[in-house]
Amino acid sequence: MEKIFSPRSVAFVGASNNLGKWGGIIFRNLLDGGYEGEIYPVNPKEETVQGLKAFRAVAEISGDIDLAIFTIPSAAVPAAIKECVRKKVPAGIVITAGFAELGGDGAREQEEMVRLARSGGMVLVGPNGQGISSPRAKLHPWMPVLKPEPGVIAVASQSGNVSTVVAEELADFGFGCSKAVSAGNCADLSWPDYLEYFRQDPETRVIVLYVEGVGDGPAFFKAAKAAALEKPVVIIKSGRTQAGAVAAASHTGVLAGSDQVFSAACRQAGLIRAETIEDAVIMAASFVKTPLPAGRKVGVITGGGGFGVIAADACLRLGLDVVKLSDETIGKLKAHLPPWWSPNNPVDMVAGIGYGGPRELIPILMDSGEVDGVILLGIGWIYSMLDSVTSKIDFRNPEDKTLLARLDHDLKYNEMLRDYFFQFKKPLLMTSTMARLAVRRGYPGLLKLVNDGIMLYPTIEDSIRAFGALAERGRFLQQEKNLQCSTHED
Amino acid sequence: MEKIFSPRSVAFVGASNNLGKWGGIIFRNLLDGGYEGEIYPVNPKEETVQGLKAFRAVAEISGDIDLAIFTIPSAAVPAAIKECVRKKVPAGIVITAGFAELGGDGAREQEEMVRLARSGGMVLVGPNGQGISSPRAKLHPWMPVLKPEPGVIAVASQSGNVSTVVAEELADFGFGCSKAVSAGNCADLSWPDYLEYFRQDPETRVIVLYVEGVGDGPAFFKAAKAAALEKPVVIIKSGRTQAGAVAAASHTGVLAGSDQVFSAACRQAGLIRAETIEDAVIMAASFVKTPLPAGRKVGVITGGGGFGVIAADACLRLGLDVVKLSDETIGKLKAHLPPWWSPNNPVDMVAGIGYGGPRELIPILMDSGEVDGVILLGIGWIYSMLDSVTSKIDFRNPEDKTLLARLDHDLKYNEMLRDYFFQFKKPLLMTSTMARLAVRRGYPGLLKLVNDGIMLYPTIEDSIRAFGALAERGRFLQQEKNLQCSTHED
Repeated sequence: MEKIFSPRSVAFVGASNNLGKWGGIIFRNLLDGGYEGEIYPVNPKEETVQGLKAFRAVAEISGDIDLAIFTIPSAAVPAAIKECVRKKVPAGIVITAGFAELGGDGAREQEEMVRLARSGGMVLVGPNGQGISSPRAKLHPWMPVLKPEPGVIAVASQSGNVSTVVAEELADFGFGCSKAVSAGNCADLSWPDYLEYFRQDPETRVIVLYVEGVGDGPAFFKAAKAAALEKPVVIIKSGRTQAGAVAAASHTGVLAGSDQVFSAACRQAGLIRAETIEDAVIMAASFVKTPLPAGRKVGVITGGGGFGVIAADACLRLGLDVVKLSDETIGKLKAHLPPWWSPNNPVDMVAGIGYGGPRELIPILMDSGEVDGVILLGIGWIYSMLDSVTSKIDFRNPEDKTLLARLDHDLKYNEMLRDYFFQFKKPLLMTSTMARLAVRRGYPGLLKLVNDGIMLYPTIEDSIRAFGALAERGRFLQQEKNLQCSTHED
Repeated sequence: MEKIFSPRSVAFVGASNNLGKWGGIIFRNLLDGGYEGEIYPVNPKEETVQGLKAFRAVAEISGDIDLAIFTIPSAAVPAAIKECVRKKVPAGIVITAGFAELGGDGAREQEEMVRLARSGGMVLVGPNGQGISSPRAKLHPWMPVLKPEPGVIAVASQSGNVSTVVAEELADFGFGCSKAVSAGNCADLSWPDYLEYFRQDPETRVIVLYVEGVGDGPAFFKAAKAAALEKPVVIIKSGRTQAGAVAAASHTGVLAGSDQVFSAACRQAGLIRAETIEDAVIMAASFVKTPLPAGRKVGVITGGGGFGVIAADACLRLGLDVVKLSDETIGKLKAHLPPWWSPNNPVDMVAGIGYGGPRELIPILMDSGEVDGVILLGIGWIYSMLDSVTSKIDFRNPEDKTLLARLDHDLKYNEMLRDYFFQFKKPLLMTSTMARLAVRRGYPGLLKLVNDGIMLYPTIEDSIRAFGALAERGRFLQQEKNLQCSTHED
């Protein structure tokens, strides 16, 4: 599979000059990405394709081919695969649709295609996907123009659009990808293959899956658990309901199973299940740098009471425990809060300008032994204010003196938060309504966090769900460790 | 209450030169907003405050005062109110905290303050709020620098931060406010007053409430239902759980009731309950222009199968019915879709470039009589692509010819969608991963929709929840109409 993500040469069967066609768009994205290996467009009707000499057929290419990409009509794919097999091409990406998702003839054609490839030792991604992205190889033969930055999160998805949204949203929060693959119908390479590859891939530290059907259930969960023991695996499983299952069958030709059974199996295998694409992105990004909490006891610090009330509600709804703090801890907190502070968790700083703040409160909570982590609500609000005043501020070169002073203060504050994030062995999750804009707009204070791989949460609920996901992984690893110990003792 | 939102003159008791104090920040925002009435800063220790002549006391102001704003310490508030009463000031905003939320003495002081004000016919917002914003009066005496555009959505919130986030997010989606008020402890003016005022306010067409405690329950629901009969009312109610209720008591000194009972009462009164701040914003914005569906039957159109599967799941989870389409409708759809299309709802356009699209599919579904509305997934993706290529594109003046052509195509496409939105008497909800950026980044195609007051949904689930909220309001109005008819017949 290394040939898929790091090929020395690529043949593109169906490369087109027409930018209104898949073969035109994806070939353009391949060219634009900066890929440094050989590229061979194959198109019998053209002399050149997008500036490169075109080949009439794969057989006419004299050099070795590591990877073949197919965007030709489904009826023509088997013949092209045969040619590749003769040329000993080790890997292919079949983007073409019109196979098992149609049932009947389509399913038979898909089987035949896979049989041909396997007989020649060729592995296939797809069919019916939108391609792949391999940022370190500058290889982006897929539909979106998007070129993710090199990162540590691997994405495998049974929907091209979902893989695009995942990669886009990761980019919004400042995260790149190690590899992204639109797996389509999973006719040849399937979940166990991707999971095993990402498990071993040294560039990958977190795995995100969008799954419509697992195929061979036991094989899926075996590979998933093996991966989960080493790296966090976040899964979006759709086709959960009757209507969803019908849609999945017609989308990628897979059969969705019972949803509750699936959830229980995920928990056993250590998979973190996300309800939405957005949740999966946020959870995956959280796993990159955040330490795992030992449990679900949380301390909440808020600059405004309303956020605290909402957080307290959401914690209980989403399974976190907003613990009652001891008198000792309350006493320590009191020293840094205004006289009108109501002793409580969430710790509402009651907008006490000039009193202490997170600098004092975070260490008190972290060191109290009473919480497994801290959620800090509402950082970076200054950028929302500045942005409202003028959308033209260049944060890298502010001219206004007052602005400079405010930005400098915010910069130091966020440097402190960054240090705290890495200093404590417990999670410190921070929310900011500006989280989705920090990278795009270049807010200097928030970049102090984002550039070090810290996830900022756009909503209160996002931070709470992420804490839950981190705790769930902590639980799984602890459970496996205990099992190992007890087995060892037996 | 008109004096609060459209005063001819404002006295600011506690106006400060120190921009690190509430009295400095809020006074600055009042000055910066462009308010055209008289402004009188009151501060016995200063000659001038932020460039205006300061008065030692309210009594020293010779002109009439319509509105007094207080940021002085709580112990000094009663005396200042007395002065105002003597001067026949009709309205005040007490921003100062330290009253009922502390219990004991604080609660007694709050009662005394209200008694003093009422004895003089003066109404009070607060205490313990962050001020108000009245965009048409260019009046923004509140904590955030944010100055919402004039709009039709009124916001009343028992949390300053929540009102800020609501106004900010509305702005992100292209919506302004009619009025926003941080109601604090609701010591004098309370929910029935705000509801009745917004019900009558011709500038207000949608009402959003963030409520920690309703106070007098029957009075709240009576006023709420009266308002809901005329205008959509969206409510975020926190203090829902044990922990939330404790936090609410210490935040605004109110008592939260049983959550299930509250939900049932909301339904009866026609209030739309939102789970999160973000949901409330999206629902409120939806009510501005979207027609109400007659029921919960939905047709989904998607450019990618994965989105369709996820939507089908989410519809069932969130209470919409992805109906099976009749053979007749399927036949009509088929004429505009590629041969490999699997006949189904969601209608997956299977990325058939060059085939028909929403232009043909939307009217077929809308006119079929089989759905109460249509959800179209994934518009505006072109901007995500363009943004990825370069963050420097000036969409108003693109130089690149290819880009111009793409933008032009997208512009026409979105103009068509806008026309469809207003043409059909059923809701057409559209999702775009770029929805939150359309206004800030000025994407021309999406602005064709946003500038006409159409809400774009950032996620699939958001569009589905909004459809549910619209359907819920449709149900309520129908129920009330039926009741009225039957009462009439009796």
